[in-house]
Amino acid sequence: MDSRKPLGISVKKIEDFSEWYLQAVLKGELLDYGPVKGFIVLRPYGYRIWTILSEILDKILIATGHENGFLPLLIPEKILAKEKQHFSGFNPEVYWVTAAGNNPLSERLALRPTSEAIAYSTFSNWIKSYRDLPLKMNFWNSALRADIKGTKPLIRSSEFLWQEGHTVHENMDEAKSQSQEILEVYRKIIEEDLAIPCIAGYKSEKEKFVGAEETFTLEGIMSDGKALQMATSHNLGQNFSKTFGIKYLGRDNQEHFAWQTSWGLSWRLIGAVVMVHGDDRGIILPPRIAPIQIVIVPIFRDEDAHDVKRSAVEIGTILRSNKLRILVDDRDEYTSGWKFNEWELKGVPLRVNIGKRDIAKGELELVRRDTRERIYCKRDELMLRVPKILDEIQGNLLIQAKALLNGCISQANSLNALKSIIDSKGGFVMCGWCEDQECELRIKEATGADIRVIPFVGQDLSRFPTCVYCESKASRVAMFAQAY
Amino acid sequence: MDSRKPLGISVKKIEDFSEWYLQAVLKGELLDYGPVKGFIVLRPYGYRIWTILSEILDKILIATGHENGFLPLLIPEKILAKEKQHFSGFNPEVYWVTAAGNNPLSERLALRPTSEAIAYSTFSNWIKSYRDLPLKMNFWNSALRADIKGTKPLIRSSEFLWQEGHTVHENMDEAKSQSQEILEVYRKIIEEDLAIPCIAGYKSEKEKFVGAEETFTLEGIMSDGKALQMATSHNLGQNFSKTFGIKYLGRDNQEHFAWQTSWGLSWRLIGAVVMVHGDDRGIILPPRIAPIQIVIVPIFRDEDAHDVKRSAVEIGTILRSNKLRILVDDRDEYTSGWKFNEWELKGVPLRVNIGKRDIAKGELELVRRDTRERIYCKRDELMLRVPKILDEIQGNLLIQAKALLNGCISQANSLNALKSIIDSKGGFVMCGWCEDQECELRIKEATGADIRVIPFVGQDLSRFPTCVYCESKASRVAMFAQAY
Repeated sequence: MDSRKPLGISVKKIEDFSEWYLQAVLKGELLDYGPVKGFIVLRPYGYRIWTILSEILDKILIATGHENGFLPLLIPEKILAKEKQHFSGFNPEVYWVTAAGNNPLSERLALRPTSEAIAYSTFSNWIKSYRDLPLKMNFWNSALRADIKGTKPLIRSSEFLWQEGHTVHENMDEAKSQSQEILEVYRKIIEEDLAIPCIAGYKSEKEKFVGAEETFTLEGIMSDGKALQMATSHNLGQNFSKTFGIKYLGRDNQEHFAWQTSWGLSWRLIGAVVMVHGDDRGIILPPRIAPIQIVIVPIFRDEDAHDVKRSAVEIGTILRSNKLRILVDDRDEYTSGWKFNEWELKGVPLRVNIGKRDIAKGELELVRRDTRERIYCKRDELMLRVPKILDEIQGNLLIQAKALLNGCISQANSLNALKSIIDSKGGFVMCGWCEDQECELRIKEATGADIRVIPFVGQDLSRFPTCVYCESKASRVAMFAQAY
Repeated sequence: MDSRKPLGISVKKIEDFSEWYLQAVLKGELLDYGPVKGFIVLRPYGYRIWTILSEILDKILIATGHENGFLPLLIPEKILAKEKQHFSGFNPEVYWVTAAGNNPLSERLALRPTSEAIAYSTFSNWIKSYRDLPLKMNFWNSALRADIKGTKPLIRSSEFLWQEGHTVHENMDEAKSQSQEILEVYRKIIEEDLAIPCIAGYKSEKEKFVGAEETFTLEGIMSDGKALQMATSHNLGQNFSKTFGIKYLGRDNQEHFAWQTSWGLSWRLIGAVVMVHGDDRGIILPPRIAPIQIVIVPIFRDEDAHDVKRSAVEIGTILRSNKLRILVDDRDEYTSGWKFNEWELKGVPLRVNIGKRDIAKGELELVRRDTRERIYCKRDELMLRVPKILDEIQGNLLIQAKALLNGCISQANSLNALKSIIDSKGGFVMCGWCEDQECELRIKEATGADIRVIPFVGQDLSRFPTCVYCESKASRVAMFAQAY
């Protein structure tokens, strides 16, 4: 037993969720801290998850007519400041470059907190007529926002990897459809690939993206009952096109301001996967995004090492030919027990144990990470059964996450009831709301809970007739929660 | 004929190379200028070339045991300053972040000019024993260096996309082999995929990477006779491991400082492709890196539009099934002539013209971008002939680029001869050199030419017995050139 690395998480998920999360992402070798607070290094295992997730989304975006590009990191203050409302929203978080070498700059440059300003000042040169529309672009890059609340790796970092989509359209309907279609793309990936169900809906005026006409959001719930914004999509209307002069000659031979959308999804989702699916032993990765879907561990003594390892490699080759992501862990310097712990910590969905006796019997022992169930499988049935078992794991994780979400949705018809739920179990609380921002602010002060989402589904005002704060007539059902 | 966009380059490549290059990359829609001098936007067409190139290299790196990760953009000054020689090399080019929102930072942060400092301060936490070695990591990211010479899109930008590899090894031999193997990987890609031959060799002490033990380089020649550094690979020895404390417990149970390498290749190579292969009509892309390898242009009148377009789409489907990258340009709003010009400008290697008569004859007209040769091809021979024609184009571009390079290598045995070659035709000039840095500096002053490379091949001192400057005994053959 190699004792160099202290394997295993030393706290229980239910007892100290925050510490559990930090140990899971650090000991699971997804990431490491950078030298500046709020900045992280992605280690290969974490980066591969991001790569898999990016490739899933990129494929869909390309197939639906989006094109990738690259935008500069540095934005002159005068461009960022053009859209005043937008600028003031981001200003407290902006990092400023003020010098190059020993020379002060004549105008300070912002590190992009998001790229609307720089993208649209560029788009305005590209778009002349309706024939140039729609313009549907995507950028895989990073954004930087000095975090003013507490930081948490992946969930709240001062620098994060994401994609930001920016599209330009001829009319309002097309822009609105685009922003809703992208929300649905996000929802499907998050539910089907990450096995996390979300509540889809609108953001309130107060919570929407600065400069947007309307913001659509997907809100998830973490195991501690706190909400997490999973991804957002914005219908920008003509707000930015008027500021940045994105005009086109229409089919009617008249000049029009264009209609726009923007939308983004970040590495935060990897943090959500850890939070939602993990257990006291560490991370549990849904098979669809796991860099290693199956780890094969040969269990051997010196005298049978050669045969058992060869058999493990053979099985690896068979499974790999089925397009599965496989690792054969035949390292000599670690015991089997040590390896089991390591791969459980790192959340590999399925483990294949293979020893001398198994080879003789033509049988293999499979161990599911999610249920820790042992499954015995004939060697020649492997190709048939393994993909099904992976599907079952994927399905089971979603079922569990749905149970978590459903158990975290409550209802309240009074401020006291709302506050008591938030204080005790957390989660989402459905309430009637009069749409007055004053009530929203007062509720936040009283409970620490925001309006996370005005859900598309469940707008049944007969069940929530009055505003949970002012008790006047409600016009919307809103879901309140404390959030990351 | 649509006259909205002024198509075509208005100067000849041979007459005003610099202006020709700018028009080629801008009108060819590879890129656009950003709002800050020295910064560019990559448009979809340019970004796709970078993606194809990245994927070629990434595949090789993964297959040879490298892993990708992500490093923070911002580096605290104290970490960057740890390796003093390295720091002073980059200091004049470093962008500094000094504020976040309205708050000045307590320590200023550098935008990474390269990641040695931040990577190695992190690696020192990961590496404990020989079992953690070799560590072979790669990072696809951007770097920022305020350009102090003139800027040129892709070739010299203040921000650029690249990959930077960083490896850690148990001994000197392994590190040296690694840095040489990577140079060979780069050389093969540049020659075989980009169709640009290079001179491989060492940098001089003066020109090597700051902090490196030795720098290996690939130097190309552009059509104007100026050299371009295509990619470099550095054997770092123990210089950085001693500074950043990267120590490991060896197989001998003793603690050792590790041996390291770093190496990088950037989007500059896209600029080199344009410079080397382009002609007065615009860009010419080697098929292996062309986002569109074949454009199919249906030539039709209103009455036969439907049939001809359908036929074009069918041919597109056939070729696409052969894993070729195809575009069917069946836009109604542009004439065929306009389309021919556009795709020639953008450098698509092969065009298929298809009209009503061609359909009747079961024949297609193919037009090579490199030679503008017309080739008639039976429709049922398409699958057989097209891949061969693409290979011929790839091969022909390399032959032409080799002829360019060979025509740009001269020899000189006196400063006057060297100066006269540099002033007249440019290119590389092979000279004897005594390895005294003083001579190197004086030659630069007198001719504007640096030592670009001390070539691996051609170290025949009998042909260059004396230093071209001081006329004492030469110990190396060096290649001098003016460079970008």
